[in-house]
Amino acid sequence: MSKQALQYLSENREQLLEKLKTFLSIPSVSTDSVHKQDIKAAADYLEKYLNDIGFDKVEQQDTGGHPLIFAEYSQAGSDAPTALFYGHYDVQPVDPIDQWKSDPFQPEIRDGRLYARGSSDDKGQVFMHLAVFEAYMNSEGKLPINLKVCIEGEEEIGSENLYTVLHDKKEQFDADFAVISDSGMVAENQPTILYGLKGFTGIEINVNGPDHDLHSGMYGGAVRNPIMALNHILTSMKNEDEVVTVDGFYDGVEPLSENERKLIKNVQGENYEESTGVKETVSEKGYTAKEHTMGRPTFEINGMYGGYQGEGTKTIIPSTATAKITCRLVPGQDPETIQELLEKHIHQAAPSGVTVDVKKEKLSAKAYKVEPDNPLIKKAAESYTKAFGKETVYVRMGGSIPVVEWIEDIYNIPIVLLGFGTPDDRLHSPNESFPLDSFDKGMETLVHYWADIKK
Amino acid sequence: MSKQALQYLSENREQLLEKLKTFLSIPSVSTDSVHKQDIKAAADYLEKYLNDIGFDKVEQQDTGGHPLIFAEYSQAGSDAPTALFYGHYDVQPVDPIDQWKSDPFQPEIRDGRLYARGSSDDKGQVFMHLAVFEAYMNSEGKLPINLKVCIEGEEEIGSENLYTVLHDKKEQFDADFAVISDSGMVAENQPTILYGLKGFTGIEINVNGPDHDLHSGMYGGAVRNPIMALNHILTSMKNEDEVVTVDGFYDGVEPLSENERKLIKNVQGENYEESTGVKETVSEKGYTAKEHTMGRPTFEINGMYGGYQGEGTKTIIPSTATAKITCRLVPGQDPETIQELLEKHIHQAAPSGVTVDVKKEKLSAKAYKVEPDNPLIKKAAESYTKAFGKETVYVRMGGSIPVVEWIEDIYNIPIVLLGFGTPDDRLHSPNESFPLDSFDKGMETLVHYWADIKK
Repeated sequence: MSKQALQYLSENREQLLEKLKTFLSIPSVSTDSVHKQDIKAAADYLEKYLNDIGFDKVEQQDTGGHPLIFAEYSQAGSDAPTALFYGHYDVQPVDPIDQWKSDPFQPEIRDGRLYARGSSDDKGQVFMHLAVFEAYMNSEGKLPINLKVCIEGEEEIGSENLYTVLHDKKEQFDADFAVISDSGMVAENQPTILYGLKGFTGIEINVNGPDHDLHSGMYGGAVRNPIMALNHILTSMKNEDEVVTVDGFYDGVEPLSENERKLIKNVQGENYEESTGVKETVSEKGYTAKEHTMGRPTFEINGMYGGYQGEGTKTIIPSTATAKITCRLVPGQDPETIQELLEKHIHQAAPSGVTVDVKKEKLSAKAYKVEPDNPLIKKAAESYTKAFGKETVYVRMGGSIPVVEWIEDIYNIPIVLLGFGTPDDRLHSPNESFPLDSFDKGMETLVHYWADIKK
Repeated sequence: MSKQALQYLSENREQLLEKLKTFLSIPSVSTDSVHKQDIKAAADYLEKYLNDIGFDKVEQQDTGGHPLIFAEYSQAGSDAPTALFYGHYDVQPVDPIDQWKSDPFQPEIRDGRLYARGSSDDKGQVFMHLAVFEAYMNSEGKLPINLKVCIEGEEEIGSENLYTVLHDKKEQFDADFAVISDSGMVAENQPTILYGLKGFTGIEINVNGPDHDLHSGMYGGAVRNPIMALNHILTSMKNEDEVVTVDGFYDGVEPLSENERKLIKNVQGENYEESTGVKETVSEKGYTAKEHTMGRPTFEINGMYGGYQGEGTKTIIPSTATAKITCRLVPGQDPETIQELLEKHIHQAAPSGVTVDVKKEKLSAKAYKVEPDNPLIKKAAESYTKAFGKETVYVRMGGSIPVVEWIEDIYNIPIVLLGFGTPDDRLHSPNESFPLDSFDKGMETLVHYWADIKK
């Protein structure tokens, strides 16, 4: 049944591209209050689009911040599953504007790419879904499945009100599974399933010694140096094999299966030496760098400071020293439990002569993972392959996406991350763009996916 | 032969005090060019004083910076030793001026203390020497020993030109031993011989990882964290027993003798917990805090920094991390050798995946120590006891005094540090003062000392 929809996309390509350009030309920058009317205009655009193509129920919801678009289609019948589609219509600021080769809000096609702020993140990817809905509705008169649409306008400012909406309107937004297209492929034209995200937690350690900075000649030899004490504590937490040596840290972490190791090996992935300038990669003993970044928890000191930081020398024993630490977590690790384990370890490891405070960061998230052989995932991989003519690779990512954690937390449903971005899209930077080829193949993928899910 | 001189000091106390007040009322602040004329006035004052009391040769030497006063007295005969007396006539700035209870350059006596900038550091102590020379000359017509006087005007700005003068005019300034009164006693009225100073050296360690800060989710697990690498390096350099674990660091360091341990134990010393706010002192295994600060080398991280230092969390792997380290050295340790040992250790201890640069600080100094049973020291202790009526204590100090290192380096003669300051003098701070009682007893000590040395 996908033939007619594909034909519609092909026949209407130019009009659809014009529609996308119109959507991208609205400067819906969410951080800046001067764009408040533009944000509203983008929301209005979506509301009208969804009404025009025949969704049953379209709402512009007041979140307290920027409006959220909700829409529902339920005519696929009770035997068809219901998908929750999430995306966002707000975009990053455009500074530094003088580095753009064309106006960020006057979309321009150059060398097969569409240049505009939001072309990849996320208005372009949202539009691909809308266009596919339109194709089905206008060619076949219906969608293969039931749908709920949730498009927010605050993603680039931390999705401030989304959790409340998802939590308070659970019945309205509930679905059998969720689909999100706000991520990318490991390489252009390389279909990529993102089937796991890491969780996250953080602490700050403050080591306090003398009540003021001391003369190192007068007091060196009598007083514990807080920076050195902090060094001893931190060194006891991760060894040179990049293994975290905090008791219980790996409890509940499942080892990487042979299948996962194979999936990870199949990913071409980044040349870390080239992209970061390091001479060699370093990863947890027994795991490759790709395995560690994708599938194993990490412990990183994000910042550390104490004492004199100016030019030359100041011969003091500093009064305090501070380290900021975050961990990326995998399934089986609870952020709060990890914080407690870290805190306990730190107090046990602290040398005499100093006092140590541990501050637990409030921001934390659990890891997310869907099994790669889940039928919803396998069908996504097959749809990709049909459209791109290439085997799909499976990746897990070290980052966190709050909305994924929240949908998992509140709805407990599988989440399919169908990303179409490419590594060259320059998200958040000047000259953001998206390949027209990915636009076509991405829409084709979605047409196949909705049809295949129905089967 | 000291009786007449003592009588002179007693009979002329008021006039001498008035002369001191005149000297202290000259605002000879060396840092500030608005005081250039005052600096000259203070130098003129000294030149005239030394001429008036009958020194053979008095010179105001041009150093390129502020003038240096040289004077010589050689009539004690060739069988009498020659002492080089060093002091400085410049003073620290007076800011914050509003915290002074009386004008810093209008000396005022309150509760037995003379309040004025420079009353203790070092014009007051220099003046005590001048008054004693005057007492000898005016009462007995001669000094018991031969003398060379060196009073500089740049001590508070790092003695910029002194090394050159001492080095280039070696023959003119050469003596059998040196006497310096620019330090203090461990407590008021507690005669104190400072018989050792520590040396000093420093390095800066820079650890470089990726060429820019990285997203900890994308790269955590693939790249060595430079802060953690630096922690591993530093932890390998000093253990929790406060023992430096760098190969060769203690080579050539003589153990503290039983006699020295006894001398150190006899010093009442500071209550470190009270003055620094630490709960407990921590010192090198096998040594007390007093022993370590006075007589054992130290290794301190003066500052360390890398990555994010703002509020909250920034999930990066930083590109670099830096630590600033200084060591206080004891006799037997060569600053440059120590720098090389540290550098070698650091490169060996550096984990893979980072590059490490070690920058050697140029400023460094050798330790100084004179044996406590040197007759010049024993006689100083006896002179103190005669004047103060109390046993003298012997201390070594963690700090460095550049002029001591230079006299040792160029002249290789014993240096007697005859300090009269007290812990409450507030050097470099508002309301600097000096006890009149110490003024009297200090001069008495000097009268005895010159007479005893002659014997």
